[in-house]
Amino acid sequence: MIEALSVHRAPIVDALKRIDAQHGAELTTVNRWADDLRTRLLEFTQRGKLIRGSLVATASAALGTRPGPAVYTVAAAVELVQSFLLIHDDIMDEDPVRRGMPAVYEQYRRYGTDHRYEHPQRFGESMAICGGDVAMLLAVTAVTGITADERTRLRLVSLLSREIGLVGVAQMADVANGHAPHGADEEEILSVYRYKTGRYTFSLPLMLGAILAGADAQTVERLSTWGELQGVVFQIRDDHLGIMGETDEIGKPSGSDIAADKQTLHRLHLRSRVKGTRWQDVASYFGEPELTSGQIARVREALEETGTLALLEERIASLRAQARSLLADMDLSDEGRALFDRIDEYNAGRTV
Amino acid sequence: MIEALSVHRAPIVDALKRIDAQHGAELTTVNRWADDLRTRLLEFTQRGKLIRGSLVATASAALGTRPGPAVYTVAAAVELVQSFLLIHDDIMDEDPVRRGMPAVYEQYRRYGTDHRYEHPQRFGESMAICGGDVAMLLAVTAVTGITADERTRLRLVSLLSREIGLVGVAQMADVANGHAPHGADEEEILSVYRYKTGRYTFSLPLMLGAILAGADAQTVERLSTWGELQGVVFQIRDDHLGIMGETDEIGKPSGSDIAADKQTLHRLHLRSRVKGTRWQDVASYFGEPELTSGQIARVREALEETGTLALLEERIASLRAQARSLLADMDLSDEGRALFDRIDEYNAGRTV
Repeated sequence: MIEALSVHRAPIVDALKRIDAQHGAELTTVNRWADDLRTRLLEFTQRGKLIRGSLVATASAALGTRPGPAVYTVAAAVELVQSFLLIHDDIMDEDPVRRGMPAVYEQYRRYGTDHRYEHPQRFGESMAICGGDVAMLLAVTAVTGITADERTRLRLVSLLSREIGLVGVAQMADVANGHAPHGADEEEILSVYRYKTGRYTFSLPLMLGAILAGADAQTVERLSTWGELQGVVFQIRDDHLGIMGETDEIGKPSGSDIAADKQTLHRLHLRSRVKGTRWQDVASYFGEPELTSGQIARVREALEETGTLALLEERIASLRAQARSLLADMDLSDEGRALFDRIDEYNAGRTV
Repeated sequence: MIEALSVHRAPIVDALKRIDAQHGAELTTVNRWADDLRTRLLEFTQRGKLIRGSLVATASAALGTRPGPAVYTVAAAVELVQSFLLIHDDIMDEDPVRRGMPAVYEQYRRYGTDHRYEHPQRFGESMAICGGDVAMLLAVTAVTGITADERTRLRLVSLLSREIGLVGVAQMADVANGHAPHGADEEEILSVYRYKTGRYTFSLPLMLGAILAGADAQTVERLSTWGELQGVVFQIRDDHLGIMGETDEIGKPSGSDIAADKQTLHRLHLRSRVKGTRWQDVASYFGEPELTSGQIARVREALEETGTLALLEERIASLRAQARSLLADMDLSDEGRALFDRIDEYNAGRTV
């Protein structure tokens, strides 16, 4: 993603190993499954891009506190939370591949098959439900144990549990939107963007980093709002690429988001704009499993011609303007401000 | 269960409603599923026996601190954790009934069916995975927010997350023991008893109550060990009743634990003792779905004749003796001591 974030990878991985050595090792007294899970969690978590953890460190640095072991432990805890969410999400989505390897439930399903367990699929899903739960509890335990004053640790853990609770509720809507026959409305779509991408991916790490840097409540709150806006920008661009991008750019078959009837703002606005026009046939292409390249091209043309793309670009510009004004009079290091600008540009402008 | 514990029910339910009004209400900003879940969690949690929550209050009172709002909030949080575990367990066990009502995944499955969602079973399970996650996070958030000094709150939340992590690993073994073709050995069975029943049901609530009462580390540790021993006693008696009890006493069909091949110490020791004796046919009755009453009677007779029942009664007596010696020189209120004795008698001697 952004080169400047990658300097945090090695120290986050080190912190992850420290959490495992300290708190993971306590689990080993229970039974042999603890070590099995520890190995899987370490590998699974390290294979992530560690963006959220890097944002914890970025915020701390931008507010004048050079990241040390406490910051990186919280960053690693955030990555364990991310593993928890992905492990549970993959069960819900029945998605057997994640981070270029079998999803955790799929790993246990294979274990069950290899060891002639009854009902290996159910075994795999059950083990992954537990494994996700344990990852989240490890994250909470790790945050309570960092070297920082008690008030800071309590603020961090309270924020973490509160925000992940919000993500859980957003995920319920995401699940429901995926199963409901009528599709999601604008408010439902935006709420998922705001909580699953905005607050979770951007606001939470930035707030944690700000608290670790001893920032005041107003600064924490501004970064939170900035993150929420950035998350919505990121997600609108992501949806744009999912429809407009070619297979080699987006890492999934061109048009697959149309075929999957993914509940996006693009889909919603396009469908309302094509009614009674010469483009109205494209509404029926959404959710069609076998799309021709001609149909995909026609959806793209309709997005352009009906002004849907322009509308969403305006939306992005407006969100970015709001975000920019929040940072304007904040007391940030030059390097930190440059990095926030870089994140803003990336979220809005990325093409892959 | 024990009459004296029931005085805590009403204040725990009040605390649960306060948690919902304060922290549950924050979730409502996300989307409409928050209120749906809050209603289900409140009803589901209140229908529990609230034993664990009552033990938090009992320990606090026994150590000289009359339970107030902080104690009852922690007690209610422990009950939310219990809801979290049951909601996830019911998915794993595919058990559609819990606490005399549909399990949470089953409630959502029915919702999905009624609203013509695609794949209502998967929808129900996915919503219940999220719902359980949210219940646990609400519990953590509630504990961080009680009226107590920062050090105490941090100790409580750290203990809670650490111990529930251990339960998660114990649950993995329980899942694996249920699916494995070879069955569990003594160490595996005892580990599940120790962590799922002992530490979780008894030690954790007692430790939380002791910390709230400002007890020293040694007292907290002793109550923890006492709870672990009591949990194993409770579980051995539970297994005994599951095999020896009649349908009207145990609330499930007589012999159903034999038919289900439940991994108990009774099963394990009986199977090793009948080898090469005139009782050896009973080994094959375990896991037999259609047991005759004659076969059930023969299993019971074999447990008696081979000395398996006597062995397990000795085991119970020895665990109780260890537990008693822990309490002997502890500084407890008379009422508190009497109540701990009553719990000990109940766990060892209950017949239903």
